Amino acid sequence: MSLLTIGSIAFDSIKTPFGKISKTLGGSASYISLSAKNFTAVSIIAVVGKNFTDKYQRILKGVNTKGIEKTSGKTFQWGGEYGFDLNSRKTLYTKLGVFADFKPKLNEHHRNTKYIFLGNIHPKLQLDVLKQIKKPKLVGLDTMNLWIKTAHKDLLNVIKQIDVLIINDEEARQLSKENNLLKSAKKILRMMNDKNSTLIIKQGEHGLLMFINNNLSLRRTTAAKQSKNKIAALPSVARNDMQIFNLPGFPLENVVDPTGAGDSFAGGFMGYLAKADNISYKSLKKACAYGTITASFCIEKFGTKALENLTDKHIQKRYKKYKQLTRFNI
Amino acid sequence: MSLLTIGSIAFDSIKTPFGKISKTLGGSASYISLSAKNFTAVSIIAVVGKNFTDKYQRILKGVNTKGIEKTSGKTFQWGGEYGFDLNSRKTLYTKLGVFADFKPKLNEHHRNTKYIFLGNIHPKLQLDVLKQIKKPKLVGLDTMNLWIKTAHKDLLNVIKQIDVLIINDEEARQLSKENNLLKSAKKILRMMNDKNSTLIIKQGEHGLLMFINNNLSLRRTTAAKQSKNKIAALPSVARNDMQIFNLPGFPLENVVDPTGAGDSFAGGFMGYLAKADNISYKSLKKACAYGTITASFCIEKFGTKALENLTDKHIQKRYKKYKQLTRFNI
Repeated sequence: MSLLTIGSIAFDSIKTPFGKISKTLGGSASYISLSAKNFTAVSIIAVVGKNFTDKYQRILKGVNTKGIEKTSGKTFQWGGEYGFDLNSRKTLYTKLGVFADFKPKLNEHHRNTKYIFLGNIHPKLQLDVLKQIKKPKLVGLDTMNLWIKTAHKDLLNVIKQIDVLIINDEEARQLSKENNLLKSAKKILRMMNDKNSTLIIKQGEHGLLMFINNNLSLRRTTAAKQSKNKIAALPSVARNDMQIFNLPGFPLENVVDPTGAGDSFAGGFMGYLAKADNISYKSLKKACAYGTITASFCIEKFGTKALENLTDKHIQKRYKKYKQLTRFNI
Repeated sequence: MSLLTIGSIAFDSIKTPFGKISKTLGGSASYISLSAKNFTAVSIIAVVGKNFTDKYQRILKGVNTKGIEKTSGKTFQWGGEYGFDLNSRKTLYTKLGVFADFKPKLNEHHRNTKYIFLGNIHPKLQLDVLKQIKKPKLVGLDTMNLWIKTAHKDLLNVIKQIDVLIINDEEARQLSKENNLLKSAKKILRMMNDKNSTLIIKQGEHGLLMFINNNLSLRRTTAAKQSKNKIAALPSVARNDMQIFNLPGFPLENVVDPTGAGDSFAGGFMGYLAKADNISYKSLKKACAYGTITASFCIEKFGTKALENLTDKHIQKRYKKYKQLTRFNI
């Protein structure tokens, strides 16, 4: 199956202890689609300005960009700087540009997509897109501290209607007002849809925790109900009312720019699920591993540079290493 | 096989956001032995003062305490306080007491032990013990920032003579003067013995990284050379000249006191290896998992409380959960 994503397309200016880069292609939709295209066909819903030239367009080769609207005005811009250990990031500026008045309009092809990822953008835009989808099978969503703070109600509204929420540990703590991540996860799963939500809490270099509500019959749409791919219950690791799955990060020696790591994770995760067209527990775990792998490539070079040349062969090779890296008893 | 450990026995006074406890049994040797005794017979080399009463002695039931010397003077005391998220610790006081003049003397039984863990104590004392061992098969060692700073030469001297170094990420960075943990690991492995050293970097709630030099024929003593248990090479995950293995932490909802977590890890790790009497790569990985499990119990209660009532049944149950928690593709 193919994947549809909405998110930002931006010109990023990034400074890290290892160098800097100016006006490089960035934004959540760019990182998501460049990661996901290694697994399946991807379409983007986004908006750019007149200054989005062919130079940028060419980087998105292999991605269906028919849903990128080009209007008068300037492409979204972001500037950021990372501290010595790459864990602290300072946003220097954010210029919304054409995103300020964006009203996403989906064509028939987009509206029929089954796998949707709502990249980090105002929750109202995420909901605008979701409403136009006919029969989604799996909807993922990313958000950020800004929306948790300034668009709390809209965010709660949209996360009630999705299947997989992908956020980082800080955002989870902020959203749940709980420091302990297990307690935080329980609270967030309650904020999500009734029974079968999945929450992924990214922990940067330390990997991730995935939580799945334990009542594992598929929910949501008729399409989902008709599917054969039920999420299989594995009660053995259930703690109270949820499943937990834990993956470490892929250890890297040379990290130069963490920008886009979270989006690349989402791209690999959703790309794998759409390709497999299977949302069993096993699939979700493999998707987490593929997401970790695409993100690990992303941060080894500046901006989208590493993703531009990424191939399935690279991904499979690292996936195999990763599997061995984390198995303690076979 | 049995395990011999040297380390501190202390009276700890601990304050965390979840409560406090005064003059409870503490010290590295206590946590190590109470964790390891679930796997194999453990002997302690340590010193206590006259105020080490039967009340404390009883807690070490099941541990061979013949190597605990009782002298005039006071038992080592430590006081510490944890911040809100339990990640920051402030040492309020350290009173060395009888440890100031301790000269460990090992009996014949001790000297014949094959599995040795040198708990966190001055490197000179660690070396004093190691010298008295006849034919060690596997020697592990823990240390801390204090010795890295104030006894650097002694520490480098002793880590050249051991097999497994177990430290945390901060200590690894301090010892190697490298921020990136892979680079740090490479440097530290070079500081260790020639070919076949193992380094475990603990990352608190985020789990651990284990690094093994890739030339995996067993080194050290004649005893080791005679052993059938060669560390099996698994070149598939080798990165440059070392193997890497990565485990996430065991997710816990209620952590009340992190004191002793590192020592409990070492106890479970070494206890399992001594019991299995096998130091293959697979054994080392399983030992990491068992260490993670004993540490996870330790921090759920104050001081040694959780370890006092720990049984093999608890450990095996959690080990099984942990295995499922981390497998993404079976």
